[in-house]
Amino acid sequence: MTAATYTGARTFTTAEPTVGPPGPGQVQIAVAYTGLCGTDLHIFHGDMDARVTMPAVIGHEMSGTIAAIGEGGAGWSVGQPVTVMPTLSCGSCPACRRGNTHICHNLNFVGIDSEGSMQNSWNVPADILVALPEGLALDEAALIEPTAVAVHDVRRSKLVASDFVVVIGGGPVGQLIASVALQQGARVVLVELDPGRRETAKGFGIIAIDPREENLVEYVLRETDGAGADVAFEVSGAAAGVNSAVEVLTTRGRLVMVAIHPKPKEIDLHRFFWRELEMFGARLYQREDFEEAVRLVANGAIPARQLISRVVALQDVEEGFLSLESGGVMKVLVDCREVTA
Amino acid sequence: MTAATYTGARTFTTAEPTVGPPGPGQVQIAVAYTGLCGTDLHIFHGDMDARVTMPAVIGHEMSGTIAAIGEGGAGWSVGQPVTVMPTLSCGSCPACRRGNTHICHNLNFVGIDSEGSMQNSWNVPADILVALPEGLALDEAALIEPTAVAVHDVRRSKLVASDFVVVIGGGPVGQLIASVALQQGARVVLVELDPGRRETAKGFGIIAIDPREENLVEYVLRETDGAGADVAFEVSGAAAGVNSAVEVLTTRGRLVMVAIHPKPKEIDLHRFFWRELEMFGARLYQREDFEEAVRLVANGAIPARQLISRVVALQDVEEGFLSLESGGVMKVLVDCREVTA
Repeated sequence: MTAATYTGARTFTTAEPTVGPPGPGQVQIAVAYTGLCGTDLHIFHGDMDARVTMPAVIGHEMSGTIAAIGEGGAGWSVGQPVTVMPTLSCGSCPACRRGNTHICHNLNFVGIDSEGSMQNSWNVPADILVALPEGLALDEAALIEPTAVAVHDVRRSKLVASDFVVVIGGGPVGQLIASVALQQGARVVLVELDPGRRETAKGFGIIAIDPREENLVEYVLRETDGAGADVAFEVSGAAAGVNSAVEVLTTRGRLVMVAIHPKPKEIDLHRFFWRELEMFGARLYQREDFEEAVRLVANGAIPARQLISRVVALQDVEEGFLSLESGGVMKVLVDCREVTA
Repeated sequence: MTAATYTGARTFTTAEPTVGPPGPGQVQIAVAYTGLCGTDLHIFHGDMDARVTMPAVIGHEMSGTIAAIGEGGAGWSVGQPVTVMPTLSCGSCPACRRGNTHICHNLNFVGIDSEGSMQNSWNVPADILVALPEGLALDEAALIEPTAVAVHDVRRSKLVASDFVVVIGGGPVGQLIASVALQQGARVVLVELDPGRRETAKGFGIIAIDPREENLVEYVLRETDGAGADVAFEVSGAAAGVNSAVEVLTTRGRLVMVAIHPKPKEIDLHRFFWRELEMFGARLYQREDFEEAVRLVANGAIPARQLISRVVALQDVEEGFLSLESGGVMKVLVDCREVTA
């Protein structure tokens, strides 16, 4: 069996570990595909070496089929297509005690804090499995995890069908948020500097504008009879994105903070007061978001296939990261299927 | 009849205007008391000269009795005690169209944008009157308007009885928010640098701490079994207040932005993301807040009398502002009752 292991900044090594049978409460997955995300890229860059234990098998956006079932794995069957909701919570911290297990203070994020899916064969706790419908292509299924992020973000926004929505940032998560919002009946505009990403969005039926060519606030006011946007998603991570989001919202408009802003940013608190704006942090997903994401990918409501820019072999993970950092791609998948000679 | 008119920075002039009978849809109020608030102080300092039309009769925290009723004023009676909800909305802007008339884009704030209550005799539209119960002392009733602000702020926080609440800033609005939250069954700690204001809070049964002497976050974690605060009200207007509010909240904690921050402030957006924090701007009040404030002041749930530090005569308004700006006082009222020789 083959695994890609992170062994230090910009380096993945192909290893051939021996994977034992699944233990009690575990299931063994024959991994099909693993998607690369921004956090994985941070790991590739060496920025998360303090958190990751090397050599590390990372990866958490995945799909596969059940290969073997450990003791206590009733309800699952060999050959069944599955994905994994890659969060293990402690159950006892203040967040867990309030039912917010997804933002557990001691969260074990599978694929970062513990072994991930960039390997042929992966033993995972059965209770993080999520069943996939038969017939869903496994490469598309690798997009369920980021779709669950988008579903959660949209749920945090309290979206209603008539809302006018601005999504700031057109990477994979921004595209998915826009798609989910559109699918829920909202009017959506995506703001993105990169022409390729704007074209991608347009291919999904999403209006995409370049804020350097079109004044976003004027555009939205024109489209909303002078009101402004009901919801803004800040997915860019840029100071200008935060400012635009605050500026574009109508009275009592909702700003969902999706992007990671490592350093504090200036924000117009007076406008929050004056217009009674609202801001909601949104991180990861809850079980219901994950299950909704399965439905959306399975029924074609989300352009999963079109978001897959490239598929690389397990031994070519480094190359996958290089294309991710060079831009111009959406999702890069790693084909983790066992090569049988 | 006598009015105090603002005629330029730091200057009030006593005038003797002739007030006609109330017009159609109007009621004439014999004003009893007018409270001075922070916005009035800004006017006194000359900071709002662009907005205020001089000579200006200002004042909007008031109480009085009905002196005369214009055409169409059915339902009101002469001698009846009243206060005024000092907001006139346009009814057609995007905020009004969504039912948020209190944050109308074209709001006419009575006492700033139109004539206020620092006069013996005041004609107002009958539809902004709020009836007072018989027996409520009219000096206490002048605190209904700031109490309505506090009621609105607490409502925006979605407070539930078991919540742990941090109020940052112990001026009159902070004290009132703490009192309303306490009255709704929350556990409350008020954070204030000024020892006199902390003593005032303690007199109302509110725990008040000096953040320079006691580490706020450690205090709250100790009191909440390591969880953090459910709600924080930022009433200080200071950058440190914003930081403390963000830092002290538990997962999904709610920050209510009450203070005016004229300039953008840095805020830890990563913590909003990581802990799924929420922020709600809160401005003024809606009719239900005002009516709840009447009940709270009338039934003694709010320490209205104890918040009245000083009462000055109508011709001594300047003196009232001087004591307000010197600190060490809570509410200063202007006695607007007609002096009969």
